[in-house]
Amino acid sequence: MKRVLSSELREYAGQKVMMQGWAHRIRRLGHVTFIVLRDRGGLGQAVVEGDQMDAAQVTNESVIQIQGSVRLEDRAPSGVELQVSSLEIIGQPAEPPPIAVNSKHICSTARLDTLLKHRAISLRNPEIRSVFKVQAEIMTAFRDFLMDRGFTEISTPKIVSSATEGGAELFPVQYFEQKAYLAQSPQLYKQIMVGSGFERVFEVGKAYRAENHNTARHINEFISLDYEMGFIEDEQDVMRMEVELLRYMFERVRETCSEELKTYDAQVPEITEIPQIQLMEAKEKLKELYGATNSEEGDLNPEEERKLCEYSQREYGSELIYVTHYPRSKRPAYAMPDSEDPALTRSFDLLFRGLEITTGGQRIHEYDLLVESFRSRGLDIADFGSYLEAFKYGMPPHGGLAIGAERLTMKLLGLKNIREACLFPRDRTRLTP
Amino acid sequence: MKRVLSSELREYAGQKVMMQGWAHRIRRLGHVTFIVLRDRGGLGQAVVEGDQMDAAQVTNESVIQIQGSVRLEDRAPSGVELQVSSLEIIGQPAEPPPIAVNSKHICSTARLDTLLKHRAISLRNPEIRSVFKVQAEIMTAFRDFLMDRGFTEISTPKIVSSATEGGAELFPVQYFEQKAYLAQSPQLYKQIMVGSGFERVFEVGKAYRAENHNTARHINEFISLDYEMGFIEDEQDVMRMEVELLRYMFERVRETCSEELKTYDAQVPEITEIPQIQLMEAKEKLKELYGATNSEEGDLNPEEERKLCEYSQREYGSELIYVTHYPRSKRPAYAMPDSEDPALTRSFDLLFRGLEITTGGQRIHEYDLLVESFRSRGLDIADFGSYLEAFKYGMPPHGGLAIGAERLTMKLLGLKNIREACLFPRDRTRLTP
Repeated sequence: MKRVLSSELREYAGQKVMMQGWAHRIRRLGHVTFIVLRDRGGLGQAVVEGDQMDAAQVTNESVIQIQGSVRLEDRAPSGVELQVSSLEIIGQPAEPPPIAVNSKHICSTARLDTLLKHRAISLRNPEIRSVFKVQAEIMTAFRDFLMDRGFTEISTPKIVSSATEGGAELFPVQYFEQKAYLAQSPQLYKQIMVGSGFERVFEVGKAYRAENHNTARHINEFISLDYEMGFIEDEQDVMRMEVELLRYMFERVRETCSEELKTYDAQVPEITEIPQIQLMEAKEKLKELYGATNSEEGDLNPEEERKLCEYSQREYGSELIYVTHYPRSKRPAYAMPDSEDPALTRSFDLLFRGLEITTGGQRIHEYDLLVESFRSRGLDIADFGSYLEAFKYGMPPHGGLAIGAERLTMKLLGLKNIREACLFPRDRTRLTP
Repeated sequence: MKRVLSSELREYAGQKVMMQGWAHRIRRLGHVTFIVLRDRGGLGQAVVEGDQMDAAQVTNESVIQIQGSVRLEDRAPSGVELQVSSLEIIGQPAEPPPIAVNSKHICSTARLDTLLKHRAISLRNPEIRSVFKVQAEIMTAFRDFLMDRGFTEISTPKIVSSATEGGAELFPVQYFEQKAYLAQSPQLYKQIMVGSGFERVFEVGKAYRAENHNTARHINEFISLDYEMGFIEDEQDVMRMEVELLRYMFERVRETCSEELKTYDAQVPEITEIPQIQLMEAKEKLKELYGATNSEEGDLNPEEERKLCEYSQREYGSELIYVTHYPRSKRPAYAMPDSEDPALTRSFDLLFRGLEITTGGQRIHEYDLLVESFRSRGLDIADFGSYLEAFKYGMPPHGGLAIGAERLTMKLLGLKNIREACLFPRDRTRLTP
């Protein structure tokens, strides 16, 4: 007999079907048992009458297979239910689960630590599962948008011989006899790929930062949504592409994840334009509006990021704002200096609801300038030989960016901690599950 | 002026357009210079008449921007060319490239070591670039097919605390104060995700094997195309899904990569059914046909894999063949024992043109059986606590598989070495570029 998902049940009214899933919630009323079945389609109600079946043995999280007739029933939560004629327990829990899987608003009632420790169980909760439906949609939308614009997908090494973003914050790997590291980003490789003639490339892959921070917005292994494009005028081309990308992504999430968004009472911004502000101007504006802060030179601290987004919302009606023109001292050696003020770079961050979700910019494409920039940082250019080679033999102007998928998911859904937006987070102390 | 790609040139006959790219080949005939321009669309011919422009400075791999009129010209390779009215050099090579980028059949004339050492340059060769167009298409086809069948994309940690496939062949990572490893596969996580109610999940991600082999079919970091599905009858459901997947994938590659396939003179198999043979039977058949070999107990050696594919081609007209029923001793602890002979497992490998490209099977879903299986291998079940938790609270019958993307690419295109099917391979000694 054909298996039907709970989300498809209504289409089968009047027919006999088979359903499989977990017993999400059980209510026993006299000789009638109501079972809410959870499958990948969602939740569906089943009714077992009489005691002839194994219904008495079904407990929360039993894996069951049921057959019966589908009937419309106004009192059922989705207006339809399965009148069960046969029931089989396929997998029986050894004991009651350590987390109430069927609890509503579990994220506000259970401790995050508990939810993460028992991730195999907490992910069964529909509210928690919603997060990763949205995240999957974000990844798909990212790829579809870029492929449509002539970008090619690449997959670059995560075991690397040297740092891409500067020396610190690397996880060491023992690579046979050699010392290696986990890649902080695919930066150097995606630039090489632009030069290799693909021109436009993207990667959805893991990136690693051995940051000591243990905050609500840092994880040490994250999904980096990267793209890089050649033959640009300047960093504005990269940003224009991102504005369109986000518009597409957000529209798609609105369309395909309406249930999930409702669960989190999440509003997805309508993007028209995203305002831009130069870093120095932003600093001055913040000082003017909020007074002097314990501010970092040449960068924004988390407090300032939040306030700048408040300002953007008030001033431009936008929950997103680009901060541009970061100083060279705060950006990697490959960042393109600004032609008007060579102490600044053609770089940008994108802030969304108080958090940086993107870093990007135009990169240096001239070999001599790049070598000089690496040298001026005290970097040994011998360590970057095969990267620099791409620039030695003709490289077009190019730029790109990286979006942190977990940060974007977190901010879209209004989650409080980035760990909630990661299936199995790696943080300062967490290495399992 | 609108930038036009070489692949689009014909559509603009009679119009003025702008092109950007690399000078792939230059031929000077008296006062006329023919430049073959390479861009992400392919190759296009441009003609510069007279010496008024920078044409004399253009060398192989110069990055140029040209404007002019598009005209149909029978003598041009693609029947169309750009009559150049202005030319600008955007990026000039510092010296001639170490590899002849425009060489045809570069893979058979240049040494692989040289091509890999100068990867930033060798990837510019259209023949080499073709490989990664095909690979990108394979990844997209994999995802599209599975999403269409209710699978959800996941991204699981690559830094793990313990082995998934057995103890050896792990790359150690220093994770702050803790000892960790690079994941050999997403196996345990994708099983957890089946149990978490997603039921059907897939991942396109990196996997790591610290194998000491330095062969033409091993790399130490590879792209693993993984899926895992719940509520199966047995491993045959997993294989049926793969047969359909490969059929879809191959059709799509045929459609979208016809040029690339032509470059490699590659034939993509038409898949109808894929024959199956039990391992023991395969061994006997090989002995009968080819005599006794220096064979490994309970597995096939590379020689046997090649011969079995020859046999399959001859006997069934199929370049692919499933080998099933591997012994428990040769499979991981999570492999489901065969009900008829518990010394065997419900597992399979898929061979394609003499090489194993897939390993999969049904997994154990009963908690007690799984714990016992781990213990019987001398594994400490405390190391697998959060994995086992998924099984303790109701898990459906499930199975899945992993396809090695580089191996599949290699075999589809008839490449001799797997390194040719990896952008930046990591092997026994290679850590750069």
